Amino acid sequence: MTGREFFTAQSVSQALAGFQPSRRTGIETVSREAALGRVPASPVMSGSALPGFARSTVDGYAARAADTYGASESLPAYLDLAGAVRMGAAADTAVRSGTAAAIPTGAAIPVDADAVVMVEYTQVTMPGLIEVTRPVAVGDGVVRADEDVAVGAEIAPAGRPLRAQDLGMLAAAGVTKVAVHARPRVAILSTGDEVVPPETAQLEPGQVRDATASALAAMVTEAGGEPSPRGIVADDAEALTKTLQAAVHDCDLVVVSAGSSVGARDETAAAVESLGAPGVYCHGLAIKPGKPTLLAECDGVPVIGLPGNPLSALVVFRMVGLPVLRRVAGITVTVPEPTVTATLSRAVASAAGRLDVVQVRLSPAHVPAPGRRGENDTAPEHTATPIFGFSALLSLLTSADGYVVIDEAATGFDEGSTVTVTMYR
Amino acid sequence: MTGREFFTAQSVSQALAGFQPSRRTGIETVSREAALGRVPASPVMSGSALPGFARSTVDGYAARAADTYGASESLPAYLDLAGAVRMGAAADTAVRSGTAAAIPTGAAIPVDADAVVMVEYTQVTMPGLIEVTRPVAVGDGVVRADEDVAVGAEIAPAGRPLRAQDLGMLAAAGVTKVAVHARPRVAILSTGDEVVPPETAQLEPGQVRDATASALAAMVTEAGGEPSPRGIVADDAEALTKTLQAAVHDCDLVVVSAGSSVGARDETAAAVESLGAPGVYCHGLAIKPGKPTLLAECDGVPVIGLPGNPLSALVVFRMVGLPVLRRVAGITVTVPEPTVTATLSRAVASAAGRLDVVQVRLSPAHVPAPGRRGENDTAPEHTATPIFGFSALLSLLTSADGYVVIDEAATGFDEGSTVTVTMYR
Repeated sequence: MTGREFFTAQSVSQALAGFQPSRRTGIETVSREAALGRVPASPVMSGSALPGFARSTVDGYAARAADTYGASESLPAYLDLAGAVRMGAAADTAVRSGTAAAIPTGAAIPVDADAVVMVEYTQVTMPGLIEVTRPVAVGDGVVRADEDVAVGAEIAPAGRPLRAQDLGMLAAAGVTKVAVHARPRVAILSTGDEVVPPETAQLEPGQVRDATASALAAMVTEAGGEPSPRGIVADDAEALTKTLQAAVHDCDLVVVSAGSSVGARDETAAAVESLGAPGVYCHGLAIKPGKPTLLAECDGVPVIGLPGNPLSALVVFRMVGLPVLRRVAGITVTVPEPTVTATLSRAVASAAGRLDVVQVRLSPAHVPAPGRRGENDTAPEHTATPIFGFSALLSLLTSADGYVVIDEAATGFDEGSTVTVTMYR
Repeated sequence: MTGREFFTAQSVSQALAGFQPSRRTGIETVSREAALGRVPASPVMSGSALPGFARSTVDGYAARAADTYGASESLPAYLDLAGAVRMGAAADTAVRSGTAAAIPTGAAIPVDADAVVMVEYTQVTMPGLIEVTRPVAVGDGVVRADEDVAVGAEIAPAGRPLRAQDLGMLAAAGVTKVAVHARPRVAILSTGDEVVPPETAQLEPGQVRDATASALAAMVTEAGGEPSPRGIVADDAEALTKTLQAAVHDCDLVVVSAGSSVGARDETAAAVESLGAPGVYCHGLAIKPGKPTLLAECDGVPVIGLPGNPLSALVVFRMVGLPVLRRVAGITVTVPEPTVTATLSRAVASAAGRLDVVQVRLSPAHVPAPGRRGENDTAPEHTATPIFGFSALLSLLTSADGYVVIDEAATGFDEGSTVTVTMYR
């Protein structure tokens, strides 16, 4: 009785909902410059209103709106030029009724002005006298002192990785440091007597270089984690247990790509069982490729046992490992993935209750006949061609542009179906 | 006559096609571990076939297919057990006609075997004798020595940023170093008398902190570039020219966010004009927000003058600056962006010939009545609500989940249209 034949395969959606290790990374303070993609541990608030003063949104003349009522080309309003506001300086010119101050875009509105007339609707008919040919309402051409951000308002939420514009907003608010979740340290180890380090120049017969660890490290980095490579462990229960124990102790997430033979997989499962409570959550996922996946929680730290085949390992880590990694990292939002819709070039079958991940290559779709495409036409511009093959072949992944997920409810897609392709980037 | 009124606005698609500065970054060698997202300068080839030896894809018995022809449950074929292949070792067991060798998944196929019978279709009826209950064809259960990669085959193309699986493939092929394009150095400078460094704790009246430079630096980093911050230059022709000259000399791309007033914009344009040949490509783009954009090439180096308002500046840099940055970086493929389709909550208008970029917030769409959604139903799951406001308000961007592009041919979208939202991440 081998593990392979008798483990209970849980559905991926069940596993993602049910497997919820408690581990979260600690909190550290980083400079704003280094905060791109980092995850705020609590909402970031603005200490002051922004822009902080009423600003002009146009080049023109700050005035009192009431003074322009009824102004037109044929019957302009006339205002005395009371002065000019300089960029970046306090507006020290007073704008009384019947007067106006020249003001550039972005400058501070003089205290008694309540609108700005665009320069396009004015003329200087004689020095010191402005002719206004269109009325303005109160607030026209003006951004309020707290229109961008109110005092104490949230400028970046907790749990969402900081984006470029968030860093811009932090800069605007004068925030120089942010409390963020530490990057999760992810132990990556490989097992298998056939697996040798990628640096091995000359392979002995029967050996393969470890491809999975390098790809996993890149995926971890991309997702904001910090890979902690633990090398290759021989198919030896004691060595494996020792390495895993150290990894669980040092890291926030442990990923083992198990040897591809049944024996090697069983040893990994046994070693994980011995690590800590509550232990193995499931052994076997209803996913293709990737069935022999193991999920465990050892003293709060998630341990993921991946299949030995590189393709399976990388597919499972993407579908199951990355969501776990993001949760450990304090991310509470859905991270958007690049997708395109495409027409499937041939039928793909799946079993009900199983999640299938089909690698595809994209090519431009045939251009529809003229007149067939409307403005909002959503007919796919791409054709997706499934790439099939044995899951030890990494070339299936390197030649793929993305993948199609056939979820548990579906039993496949017909040829010509419109499918969503998640793109590799 | 101000620059604002008389510049000729070029369409964004024209500008993207026509503005092709010659600058490309140099080539440097990086280790595979550091190569994620880096851009190979030439195709990476494999020096050897992969996996390099014929491997079993199943746990079972390596045999000669001819010996199993006609085998069934009722009339099994019988094979003598000639030995066992060990993982990671050469297959030194000879498989002659009438014999078989036990083999785990991934191990080397013995030289004279041509197929592997899965263990599920065998039984050991007495020690040393294997009963086979299903026939196999030549090649069943076997991956050929060059099935993943042939000798000399391309394993990563030039011009496409290296992905996780590409690094896995490089590892499998024993590639430890890659020749890649250097990261483009991008000078980022801001102008405007009102703009002060983000570190300024207490603002004087009329001052704003520089938000744009921080956000641009993050976008550059995200796109694989190396920001080179050049600070804030006063609205002073000489200082600006000097700073720009140094930036063009040191960097692969120069980005200036111009002061928001007309005068400041004119000064930037004048300074850029003086930098080098062929000079200004266009001043004014038919894009909203972002019309006062300037594109120039000075001695091969692209110089992009962005509008002074942070929102406009960041939109233009995303739409126009990033494609230029990627080209300079040697990227020759389209970089996939995360998108979702959504139903527009209200109509948005645009002018024909102008590209409009509308910031939107996403919310879940109303769930259709049961029975209305089919397996391949592509009805949007999201509602996109446009966010409007003055383009100096950075909060429009920080509160957005993504944006909708209304291209030059369209004059807007009706309420309820299905639109593609490009997501910020």
